[in-house]
Amino acid sequence: MVDPTPGGSRPPREPSHLEVIALEGIPEIQTDDDLAQIVVDALRATPGALPAHGDDVLVVTQKVVSKAEGAIADLTAIEPRPEAVAFAERWDRDARQVELVLRHAKRVVRMDNGVVITETTHGFVCANGGIDASNVGPDRGTIVTLLPDDPDASAGRIRVAVREATGVDVPVIVSDSFGRPWRYGIVDVAIGVSGLQPLEDLRGTPDRDGRVMKSTVRGVADELASAAELTLGKRSGRPVALVRGARFIRAEGSIRDVLMPESMDLFR
Amino acid sequence: MVDPTPGGSRPPREPSHLEVIALEGIPEIQTDDDLAQIVVDALRATPGALPAHGDDVLVVTQKVVSKAEGAIADLTAIEPRPEAVAFAERWDRDARQVELVLRHAKRVVRMDNGVVITETTHGFVCANGGIDASNVGPDRGTIVTLLPDDPDASAGRIRVAVREATGVDVPVIVSDSFGRPWRYGIVDVAIGVSGLQPLEDLRGTPDRDGRVMKSTVRGVADELASAAELTLGKRSGRPVALVRGARFIRAEGSIRDVLMPESMDLFR
Repeated sequence: MVDPTPGGSRPPREPSHLEVIALEGIPEIQTDDDLAQIVVDALRATPGALPAHGDDVLVVTQKVVSKAEGAIADLTAIEPRPEAVAFAERWDRDARQVELVLRHAKRVVRMDNGVVITETTHGFVCANGGIDASNVGPDRGTIVTLLPDDPDASAGRIRVAVREATGVDVPVIVSDSFGRPWRYGIVDVAIGVSGLQPLEDLRGTPDRDGRVMKSTVRGVADELASAAELTLGKRSGRPVALVRGARFIRAEGSIRDVLMPESMDLFR
Repeated sequence: MVDPTPGGSRPPREPSHLEVIALEGIPEIQTDDDLAQIVVDALRATPGALPAHGDDVLVVTQKVVSKAEGAIADLTAIEPRPEAVAFAERWDRDARQVELVLRHAKRVVRMDNGVVITETTHGFVCANGGIDASNVGPDRGTIVTLLPDDPDASAGRIRVAVREATGVDVPVIVSDSFGRPWRYGIVDVAIGVSGLQPLEDLRGTPDRDGRVMKSTVRGVADELASAAELTLGKRSGRPVALVRGARFIRAEGSIRDVLMPESMDLFR
Protein backbone atom coordinates (compact mmCIF):
# COMPACT_ATOMS: atom_id res chain seq x y z
CA MET A 1 0.00 0.00 0.00
CA VAL A 2 1.42 3.34 -0.99
CA ASP A 3 0.57 5.95 1.55
CA PRO A 4 -1.34 9.02 0.40
CA THR A 5 0.54 12.28 0.74
CA PRO A 6 -1.04 14.23 3.56
CA GLY A 7 -0.35 17.90 3.31
CA GLY A 8 0.48 18.14 -0.37
CA SER A 9 -0.83 21.44 -1.61
CA ARG A 10 -3.46 21.62 1.13
CA PRO A 11 -2.53 23.55 4.28
CA PRO A 12 -1.07 20.96 6.67
CA ARG A 13 -3.05 20.23 9.79
CA GLU A 14 -1.79 21.45 13.13
CA PRO A 15 -0.53 18.41 15.03
CA SER A 16 -0.57 18.37 18.79
CA HIS A 17 1.50 15.29 19.50
CA LEU A 18 4.96 14.36 18.30
CA GLU A 19 6.96 11.20 18.86
CA VAL A 20 10.62 10.58 18.18
CA ILE A 21 11.76 6.96 18.12
CA ALA A 22 15.47 6.15 17.94
CA LEU A 23 15.94 3.10 15.74
CA GLU A 24 17.55 0.07 17.31
CA GLY A 25 20.09 -2.45 16.14
CA ILE A 26 22.18 -0.33 13.77
CA PRO A 27 25.72 -1.71 13.79
CA GLU A 28 29.00 0.18 13.36
CA ILE A 29 28.86 1.32 9.72
CA GLN A 30 31.73 0.58 7.32
CA THR A 31 32.48 1.84 3.83
CA ASP A 32 30.24 0.21 1.21
CA ASP A 33 27.73 -1.00 3.78
CA ASP A 34 24.19 -0.87 2.37
CA LEU A 35 22.97 1.86 4.72
CA ALA A 36 19.50 2.02 3.16
CA GLN A 37 18.98 -1.70 3.80
CA ILE A 38 20.37 -1.32 7.32
CA VAL A 39 17.83 1.44 8.00
CA VAL A 40 15.02 -0.77 6.66
CA ASP A 41 16.16 -3.61 8.94
CA ALA A 42 16.31 -1.21 11.90
CA LEU A 43 12.78 0.03 11.19
CA ARG A 44 11.64 -3.60 11.33
CA ALA A 45 13.61 -4.26 14.53
CA THR A 46 12.33 -1.22 16.44
CA PRO A 47 9.04 -1.70 18.29
CA GLY A 48 6.43 0.81 17.14
CA ALA A 49 8.35 2.08 14.12
CA LEU A 50 6.31 0.15 11.55
CA PRO A 51 3.86 0.47 9.99
CA ALA A 52 5.13 3.88 8.94
CA HIS A 53 2.66 6.75 9.14
CA GLY A 54 1.92 9.43 6.59
CA ASP A 55 3.56 12.08 8.75
CA ASP A 56 6.74 10.18 9.60
CA VAL A 57 10.17 11.56 8.78
CA LEU A 58 13.42 9.60 9.04
CA VAL A 59 16.43 11.53 10.33
CA VAL A 60 19.80 9.93 9.55
CA THR A 61 22.94 11.50 11.00
CA GLN A 62 25.73 12.50 8.66
CA LYS A 63 28.36 10.31 10.27
CA VAL A 64 26.85 7.00 9.16
CA VAL A 65 26.01 8.37 5.72
CA SER A 66 29.58 9.53 5.21
CA LYS A 67 31.04 6.26 6.44
CA ALA A 68 28.80 4.12 4.24
CA GLU A 69 29.56 6.28 1.21
CA GLY A 70 33.29 6.29 1.87
CA ALA A 71 33.28 10.07 2.43
CA ILE A 72 36.28 9.75 4.73
CA ALA A 73 39.91 10.73 4.57
CA ASP A 74 43.09 9.50 6.22
CA LEU A 75 45.04 12.41 7.64
CA THR A 76 48.36 10.57 7.17
CA ALA A 77 47.97 11.06 3.43
CA ILE A 78 47.43 14.85 3.68
CA GLU A 79 50.24 17.35 3.02
CA PRO A 80 49.22 20.64 4.66
CA ARG A 81 49.94 23.97 2.99
CA PRO A 82 52.02 26.50 4.97
CA GLU A 83 48.93 28.54 5.90
CA ALA A 84 47.38 25.43 7.49
CA VAL A 85 50.63 24.64 9.34
CA ALA A 86 50.88 28.17 10.74
CA PHE A 87 47.25 28.27 11.87
CA ALA A 88 47.50 24.80 13.44
CA GLU A 89 50.67 25.70 15.34
CA ARG A 90 49.20 28.91 16.65
CA TRP A 91 45.96 27.33 17.87
CA ASP A 92 47.01 23.76 18.71
CA ARG A 93 45.12 22.15 15.88
CA ASP A 94 45.99 19.35 13.42
CA ALA A 95 47.43 21.03 10.32
CA ARG A 96 46.32 18.15 8.12
CA GLN A 97 42.73 18.58 9.22
CA VAL A 98 42.92 22.34 8.61
CA GLU A 99 44.29 21.55 5.14
CA LEU A 100 41.36 19.22 4.43
CA VAL A 101 38.88 21.89 5.53
CA LEU A 102 40.47 24.38 3.15
CA ARG A 103 40.45 21.87 0.28
CA HIS A 104 36.72 21.30 0.70
CA ALA A 105 35.91 25.01 0.98
CA LYS A 106 34.37 27.29 -1.60
CA ARG A 107 35.59 30.21 0.54
CA VAL A 108 36.85 30.93 4.03
CA VAL A 109 34.30 32.94 6.05
CA ARG A 110 36.42 33.34 9.22
CA MET A 111 39.72 31.82 10.30
CA ASP A 112 40.54 32.99 13.79
CA ASN A 113 40.58 31.95 17.43
CA GLY A 114 41.30 28.31 16.50
CA VAL A 115 38.14 28.14 14.43
CA VAL A 116 37.97 27.76 10.67
CA ILE A 117 34.55 28.67 9.32
CA THR A 118 34.13 27.98 5.64
CA GLU A 119 31.47 27.78 3.02
CA THR A 120 31.64 24.19 1.85
CA THR A 121 31.34 23.16 -1.76
CA HIS A 122 27.67 22.42 -0.99
CA GLY A 123 27.09 25.98 0.25
CA PHE A 124 26.90 25.23 3.97
CA VAL A 125 28.63 27.71 6.26
CA CYS A 126 29.98 25.79 9.23
CA ALA A 127 33.00 25.21 11.44
CA ASN A 128 35.69 22.89 10.05
CA GLY A 129 33.73 22.23 6.88
CA GLY A 130 31.77 19.54 8.67
CA ILE A 131 34.96 17.45 8.86
CA ASP A 132 35.03 15.49 12.06
CA ALA A 133 37.11 12.89 13.89
CA SER A 134 34.62 11.76 16.54
CA ASN A 135 32.78 8.43 16.33
CA VAL A 136 34.52 7.36 13.13
CA GLY A 137 35.08 3.88 14.54
CA PRO A 138 37.54 2.14 16.85
CA ASP A 139 41.30 2.30 16.23
CA ARG A 140 40.99 4.83 13.44
CA GLY A 141 43.00 7.66 14.91
CA THR A 142 43.83 9.42 11.66
CA ILE A 143 40.52 8.85 9.86
CA VAL A 144 38.06 11.75 9.62
CA THR A 145 34.65 11.91 8.00
CA LEU A 146 33.85 14.44 5.30
CA LEU A 147 30.36 15.63 4.42
CA PRO A 148 28.58 13.44 1.86
CA ASP A 149 29.09 14.68 -1.73
CA ASP A 150 25.36 15.21 -2.32
CA PRO A 151 23.35 14.86 0.91
CA ASP A 152 20.00 15.30 -0.88
CA ALA A 153 20.88 12.27 -3.02
CA SER A 154 22.00 10.35 0.10
CA ALA A 155 18.60 11.04 1.67
CA GLY A 156 16.87 10.06 -1.57
CA ARG A 157 18.54 6.64 -1.72
CA ILE A 158 17.37 5.78 1.79
CA ARG A 159 13.87 7.04 0.99
CA VAL A 160 13.63 4.83 -2.10
CA ALA A 161 14.80 1.76 -0.19
CA VAL A 162 12.29 2.34 2.60
CA ARG A 163 9.49 2.88 0.09
CA GLU A 164 10.35 -0.31 -1.79
CA ALA A 165 10.57 -2.35 1.41
CA THR A 166 7.54 -0.98 3.27
CA GLY A 167 5.32 0.57 0.59
CA VAL A 168 5.31 3.86 2.47
CA ASP A 169 7.00 6.98 1.16
CA VAL A 170 8.78 8.36 4.23
CA PRO A 171 10.69 11.63 3.75
CA VAL A 172 14.33 11.47 4.83
CA ILE A 173 16.62 14.11 6.35
CA VAL A 174 20.39 13.79 6.66
CA SER A 175 21.43 15.77 9.75
CA ASP A 176 24.65 17.19 11.12
CA SER A 177 25.63 19.18 14.22
CA PHE A 178 26.43 22.83 13.49
CA GLY A 179 27.51 25.65 15.78
CA ARG A 180 25.90 29.07 15.57
CA PRO A 181 27.28 32.58 15.89
CA TRP A 182 26.41 34.28 19.21
CA ARG A 183 25.16 31.13 20.88
CA TYR A 184 27.26 28.42 22.46
CA GLY A 185 26.43 24.84 21.74
CA ILE A 186 25.88 22.81 18.61
CA VAL A 187 22.44 21.83 17.38
CA ASP A 188 21.51 19.33 14.71
CA VAL A 189 20.32 20.79 11.42
CA ALA A 190 19.41 19.29 8.06
CA ILE A 191 22.15 19.02 5.43
CA GLY A 192 20.13 16.90 2.98
CA VAL A 193 16.44 16.24 2.41
CA SER A 194 14.28 14.05 0.22
CA GLY A 195 10.51 14.08 0.06
CA LEU A 196 9.79 17.20 2.09
CA GLN A 197 10.13 20.97 1.86
CA PRO A 198 12.85 21.99 4.31
CA LEU A 199 11.05 25.30 4.85
CA GLU A 200 7.41 26.14 5.41
CA ASP A 201 6.75 29.58 4.02
CA LEU A 202 3.93 31.26 5.91
CA ARG A 203 4.55 34.70 4.43
CA GLY A 204 1.32 36.18 3.18
CA THR A 205 -0.83 33.84 5.26
CA PRO A 206 -2.92 35.16 8.14
CA ASP A 207 -1.85 34.69 11.76
CA ARG A 208 -4.40 33.61 14.35
CA ASP A 209 -5.85 37.11 14.46
CA GLY A 210 -6.07 37.51 10.68
CA ARG A 211 -2.94 39.68 10.46
CA VAL A 212 -0.78 38.79 7.45
CA MET A 213 2.60 37.41 8.56
CA LYS A 214 5.47 39.16 6.81
CA SER A 215 8.55 37.20 7.65
CA THR A 216 7.58 33.79 8.96
CA VAL A 217 9.41 31.01 7.16
CA ARG A 218 9.65 27.98 9.45
CA GLY A 219 12.93 26.08 9.30
CA VAL A 220 11.07 22.84 9.77
CA ALA A 221 13.74 20.42 8.52
CA ASP A 222 16.24 21.90 10.96
CA GLU A 223 13.74 21.58 13.81
CA LEU A 224 13.10 17.95 12.86
CA ALA A 225 16.85 17.30 12.92
CA SER A 226 17.11 18.92 16.37
CA ALA A 227 14.16 16.92 17.72
CA ALA A 228 15.79 13.70 16.50
CA GLU A 229 19.09 14.58 18.18
CA LEU A 230 17.37 14.58 21.56
CA THR A 231 17.01 10.78 21.25
CA LEU A 232 20.32 10.13 19.49
CA GLY A 233 22.90 12.06 21.46
CA LYS A 234 26.58 11.83 20.71
CA ARG A 235 27.54 8.64 22.51
CA SER A 236 24.61 6.29 22.12
CA GLY A 237 25.42 4.44 18.91
CA ARG A 238 21.98 5.39 17.66
CA PRO A 239 22.38 7.25 14.38
CA VAL A 240 18.80 7.18 13.02
CA ALA A 241 15.47 8.34 14.42
CA LEU A 242 11.90 8.32 13.18
CA VAL A 243 9.94 11.53 13.91
CA ARG A 244 6.19 10.97 13.90
CA GLY A 245 3.47 13.60 13.96
CA ALA A 246 5.30 16.75 12.84
CA ARG A 247 3.76 19.31 10.57
CA PHE A 248 5.65 19.63 7.29
CA ILE A 249 4.95 19.88 3.58
CA ARG A 250 5.65 16.96 1.26
CA ALA A 251 7.43 17.98 -1.92
CA GLU A 252 10.59 17.24 -3.84
CA GLY A 253 12.50 19.78 -1.78
CA SER A 254 16.24 20.34 -1.68
CA ILE A 255 18.52 21.54 1.07
CA ARG A 256 19.60 24.23 -1.42
CA ASP A 257 16.30 25.96 -0.57
CA VAL A 258 17.75 26.67 2.89
CA LEU A 259 20.96 28.32 1.71
CA MET A 260 20.97 32.12 2.06
CA PRO A 261 21.89 33.76 -1.23
CA GLU A 262 24.93 36.04 -1.19
CA SER A 263 22.76 39.10 -1.82
CA MET A 264 20.94 38.55 1.48
CA ASP A 265 23.94 37.45 3.54
CA LEU A 266 24.82 40.15 6.08
CA PHE A 267 27.64 38.04 7.59
CA ARG A 268 30.05 37.24 4.76
CA MET B 1 5.35 13.56 45.94
CA VAL B 2 8.43 15.45 44.90
CA ASP B 3 10.09 13.80 41.99
CA PRO B 4 13.71 12.72 42.34
CA THR B 5 16.11 14.54 40.05
CA PRO B 6 17.32 12.08 37.44
CA GLY B 7 20.55 13.13 35.84
CA GLY B 8 21.86 15.39 38.58
CA SER B 9 25.60 14.95 38.67
CA ARG B 10 25.40 11.42 37.26
CA PRO B 11 25.80 11.06 33.50
CA PRO B 12 22.29 11.18 32.07
CA ARG B 13 20.94 8.02 30.50
CA GLU B 14 20.58 7.86 26.75
CA PRO B 15 16.86 8.01 25.99
CA SER B 16 15.49 6.36 22.86
CA HIS B 17 11.97 7.74 22.83
CA LEU B 18 10.75 11.32 22.99
CA GLU B 19 7.23 12.68 23.15
CA VAL B 20 6.05 16.24 22.67
CA ILE B 21 2.53 17.05 23.82
CA ALA B 22 1.01 20.43 22.99
CA LEU B 23 -1.09 21.58 25.94
CA GLU B 24 -4.76 22.17 25.33
CA GLY B 25 -7.22 24.79 26.46
CA ILE B 26 -4.94 27.82 26.79
CA PRO B 27 -7.03 30.92 26.10
CA GLU B 28 -5.92 34.19 24.49
CA ILE B 29 -3.56 35.68 27.08
CA GLN B 30 -4.04 39.24 28.37
CA THR B 31 -1.82 41.49 30.47
CA ASP B 32 -1.85 40.46 34.15
CA ASP B 33 -3.28 37.00 33.42
CA ASP B 34 -1.83 34.41 35.80
CA LEU B 35 0.08 32.51 33.13
CA ALA B 36 1.59 30.04 35.62
CA GLN B 37 -1.89 29.03 36.83
CA ILE B 38 -3.13 28.84 33.24
CA VAL B 39 -0.27 26.44 32.43
CA VAL B 40 -1.14 24.32 35.47
CA ASP B 41 -4.78 24.20 34.36
CA ALA B 42 -3.71 23.25 30.83
CA LEU B 43 -1.51 20.44 32.17
CA ARG B 44 -4.57 19.09 33.97
CA ALA B 45 -6.78 19.50 30.89
CA THR B 46 -4.42 17.73 28.47
CA PRO B 47 -4.75 13.94 28.30
CA GLY B 48 -1.46 12.25 29.13
CA ALA B 49 0.33 15.33 30.44
CA LEU B 50 -0.02 14.44 34.12
CA PRO B 51 1.41 12.90 36.17
CA ALA B 52 4.57 14.73 35.14
CA HIS B 53 7.67 12.59 34.65
CA GLY B 54 11.19 13.18 35.90
CA ASP B 55 12.43 13.93 32.39
CA ASP B 56 9.66 16.33 31.36
CA VAL B 57 10.40 19.86 30.25
CA LEU B 58 7.78 22.55 29.69
CA VAL B 59 8.35 24.87 26.74
CA VAL B 60 6.40 28.14 26.84
CA THR B 61 6.55 30.47 23.86
CA GLN B 62 7.65 34.05 24.39
CA LYS B 63 4.49 35.59 23.01
CA VAL B 64 2.24 34.49 25.87
CA VAL B 65 4.91 35.26 28.47
CA SER B 66 5.31 38.80 27.14
CA LYS B 67 1.58 39.38 26.96
CA ALA B 68 0.94 38.14 30.50
CA GLU B 69 3.81 40.24 31.84
CA GLY B 70 2.71 43.34 29.95
CA ALA B 71 5.91 43.35 27.89
CA ILE B 72 4.12 45.07 25.05
CA ALA B 73 4.22 48.48 23.46
CA ASP B 74 1.77 50.57 21.48
CA LEU B 75 3.46 51.93 18.36
CA THR B 76 1.18 54.99 18.35
CA ALA B 77 3.07 56.28 21.41
CA ILE B 78 6.52 55.94 19.79
CA GLU B 79 8.36 58.90 18.27
CA PRO B 80 10.98 57.51 15.88
CA ARG B 81 14.44 59.08 15.59
CA PRO B 82 15.53 60.31 12.14
CA GLU B 83 17.75 57.23 11.62
CA ALA B 84 14.74 54.97 12.15
CA VAL B 85 12.60 57.06 9.77
CA ALA B 86 15.24 56.95 7.04
CA PHE B 87 15.77 53.20 7.37
CA ALA B 88 12.03 52.52 7.42
CA GLU B 89 11.41 54.64 4.33
CA ARG B 90 14.17 52.98 2.41
CA TRP B 91 13.08 49.43 3.23
CA ASP B 92 9.29 49.78 3.64
CA ARG B 93 9.30 49.17 7.37
CA ASP B 94 7.43 50.81 10.27
CA ALA B 95 9.73 53.53 11.64
CA ARG B 96 8.18 53.27 15.10
CA GLN B 97 9.00 49.57 15.28
CA VAL B 98 12.57 50.25 14.13
CA GLU B 99 12.78 52.90 16.86
CA LEU B 100 11.61 50.40 19.49
CA VAL B 101 14.21 47.87 18.33
CA LEU B 102 16.95 50.49 18.69
CA ARG B 103 15.70 51.52 22.16
CA HIS B 104 15.91 47.92 23.37
CA ALA B 105 19.36 47.32 21.87
CA LYS B 106 22.70 47.18 23.60
CA ARG B 107 24.29 47.56 20.16
CA VAL B 108 23.40 47.28 16.49
CA VAL B 109 25.07 44.25 14.87
CA ARG B 110 23.81 44.86 11.30
CA MET B 111 21.28 47.29 9.87
CA ASP B 112 20.90 46.63 6.19
CA ASN B 113 18.68 45.06 3.56
CA GLY B 114 15.55 45.87 5.62
CA VAL B 115 16.84 43.85 8.55
CA VAL B 116 17.88 45.28 11.92
CA ILE B 117 19.99 42.81 13.87
CA THR B 118 20.79 43.95 17.38
CA GLU B 119 22.16 42.62 20.59
CA THR B 120 19.29 43.03 23.01
CA THR B 121 19.72 44.22 26.57
CA HIS B 122 19.63 40.52 27.54
CA GLY B 123 22.55 39.73 25.23
CA PHE B 124 20.58 37.92 22.51
CA VAL B 125 21.60 38.68 18.95
CA CYS B 126 18.49 38.53 16.80
CA ALA B 127 16.47 40.28 14.12
CA ASN B 128 14.25 43.15 15.28
CA GLY B 129 15.23 42.67 18.89
CA GLY B 130 12.61 39.97 19.26
CA ILE B 131 9.91 42.63 18.83
CA ASP B 132 6.98 41.20 16.95
CA ALA B 133 3.50 42.14 15.78
CA SER B 134 2.10 38.68 14.94
CA ASN B 135 -0.40 36.88 17.17
CA VAL B 136 -0.62 39.75 19.66
CA GLY B 137 -4.38 39.40 19.77
CA PRO B 138 -7.37 40.55 17.72
CA ASP B 139 -7.89 44.23 16.83
CA ARG B 140 -4.54 45.31 18.20
CA GLY B 141 -3.00 46.70 15.03
CA THR B 142 -0.42 48.94 16.73
CA ILE B 143 0.49 46.66 19.63
CA VAL B 144 3.77 44.74 19.49
CA THR B 145 5.28 42.35 21.99
CA LEU B 146 8.72 42.95 23.47
CA LEU B 147 10.92 40.23 24.94
CA PRO B 148 10.28 39.57 28.65
CA ASP B 149 12.56 41.60 30.92
CA ASP B 150 14.11 38.52 32.52
CA PRO B 151 13.11 35.33 30.70
CA ASP B 152 14.93 33.07 33.20
CA ALA B 153 12.75 34.56 35.95
CA SER B 154 9.65 34.14 33.76
CA ALA B 155 10.50 30.45 33.38
CA GLY B 156 11.17 30.17 37.11
CA ARG B 157 7.75 31.53 38.08
CA ILE B 158 5.99 28.95 35.93
CA ARG B 159 8.23 26.19 37.31
CA VAL B 160 7.39 27.11 40.91
CA ALA B 161 3.65 27.18 40.21
CA VAL B 162 3.77 23.77 38.51
CA ARG B 163 5.80 22.34 41.39
CA GLU B 164 3.40 23.68 43.97
CA ALA B 165 0.36 22.40 42.08
CA THR B 166 1.63 18.98 41.03
CA GLY B 167 4.52 18.19 43.40
CA VAL B 168 6.83 17.61 40.47
CA ASP B 169 9.73 19.91 39.65
CA VAL B 170 9.46 20.31 35.87
CA PRO B 171 12.14 22.46 34.21
CA VAL B 172 10.75 25.29 32.09
CA ILE B 173 12.06 26.88 28.89
CA VAL B 174 10.78 30.15 27.43
CA SER B 175 11.22 29.92 23.65
CA ASP B 176 11.26 32.35 20.75
CA SER B 177 11.74 32.06 16.98
CA PHE B 178 15.11 33.33 15.76
CA GLY B 179 16.59 33.53 12.28
CA ARG B 180 20.15 32.40 11.59
CA PRO B 181 22.89 33.73 9.34
CA TRP B 182 23.43 31.66 6.16
CA ARG B 183 20.26 29.60 6.55
CA TYR B 184 16.76 30.66 5.61
CA GLY B 185 13.98 29.97 8.04
CA ILE B 186 13.39 30.66 11.70
CA VAL B 187 13.74 28.01 14.37
CA ASP B 188 12.65 28.13 17.98
CA VAL B 189 15.43 28.54 20.54
CA ALA B 190 15.49 29.03 24.29
CA ILE B 191 15.54 32.61 25.62
CA GLY B 192 14.98 31.68 29.26
CA VAL B 193 15.43 28.53 31.34
CA SER B 194 14.75 27.36 34.86
CA GLY B 195 15.72 24.01 36.33
CA LEU B 196 17.99 22.71 33.58
CA GLN B 197 21.39 23.34 32.06
CA PRO B 198 20.79 24.85 28.63
CA LEU B 199 24.03 23.22 27.43
CA GLU B 200 25.42 19.75 27.91
CA ASP B 201 29.18 19.96 27.84
CA LEU B 202 30.69 16.71 26.57
CA ARG B 203 34.19 18.13 26.13
CA GLY B 204 36.73 15.84 27.68
CA THR B 205 34.37 12.86 27.72
CA PRO B 206 35.02 9.85 25.50
CA ASP B 207 33.07 9.24 22.33
CA ARG B 208 31.75 5.77 21.51
CA ASP B 209 35.23 4.64 20.46
CA GLY B 210 36.98 6.07 23.51
CA ARG B 211 38.30 9.14 21.68
CA VAL B 212 38.05 12.30 23.78
CA MET B 213 35.62 14.80 22.24
CA LYS B 214 37.16 18.25 21.94
CA SER B 215 34.38 20.57 20.97
CA THR B 216 31.04 18.92 21.65
CA VAL B 217 28.73 21.13 23.68
CA ARG B 218 25.11 20.20 22.96
CA GLY B 219 22.70 23.11 22.70
CA VAL B 220 20.03 21.00 24.35
CA ALA B 221 17.66 23.79 25.46
CA ASP B 222 17.55 25.13 21.91
CA GLU B 223 16.83 21.64 20.56
CA LEU B 224 14.03 21.22 23.11
CA ALA B 225 12.55 24.54 21.99
CA SER B 226 12.72 23.43 18.35
CA ALA B 227 11.13 20.07 19.12
CA ALA B 228 8.27 21.84 20.91
CA GLU B 229 7.69 24.17 17.96
CA LEU B 230 6.88 21.18 15.75
CA THR B 231 3.65 20.73 17.74
CA LEU B 232 2.92 24.42 18.29
CA GLY B 233 3.34 26.06 14.90
CA LYS B 234 2.55 29.68 14.31
CA ARG B 235 -1.19 29.58 13.81
CA SER B 236 -2.49 26.95 16.17
CA GLY B 237 -3.22 28.91 19.33
CA ARG B 238 -1.10 26.38 21.21
CA PRO B 239 1.65 28.26 23.04
CA VAL B 240 2.91 25.59 25.49
CA ALA B 241 4.23 22.06 25.01
CA LEU B 242 5.50 19.35 27.32
CA VAL B 243 8.59 17.49 26.07
CA ARG B 244 8.97 14.05 27.64
CA GLY B 245 11.97 11.76 27.46
CA ALA B 246 14.78 14.10 26.41
CA ARG B 247 18.28 13.83 27.76
CA PHE B 248 19.30 16.93 29.70
CA ILE B 249 21.01 17.87 32.94
CA ARG B 250 19.03 19.29 35.84
CA ALA B 251 20.66 22.31 37.44
CA GLU B 252 19.93 25.93 38.22
CA GLY B 253 21.06 26.96 34.75
CA SER B 254 20.65 30.34 33.09
CA ILE B 255 20.23 31.33 29.49
CA ARG B 256 23.30 33.52 30.03
CA ASP B 257 25.34 30.30 29.77
CA VAL B 258 24.40 30.20 26.09
CA LEU B 259 25.57 33.71 25.21
CA MET B 260 28.87 33.81 23.34
CA PRO B 261 31.33 36.14 25.06
CA GLU B 262 32.66 39.02 22.97
CA SER B 263 36.17 37.51 22.98
CA MET B 264 34.90 34.44 21.11
CA ASP B 265 32.48 36.20 18.79
CA LEU B 266 33.80 36.14 15.21
CA PHE B 267 30.70 37.90 13.83
CA ARG B 268 30.41 41.19 15.65
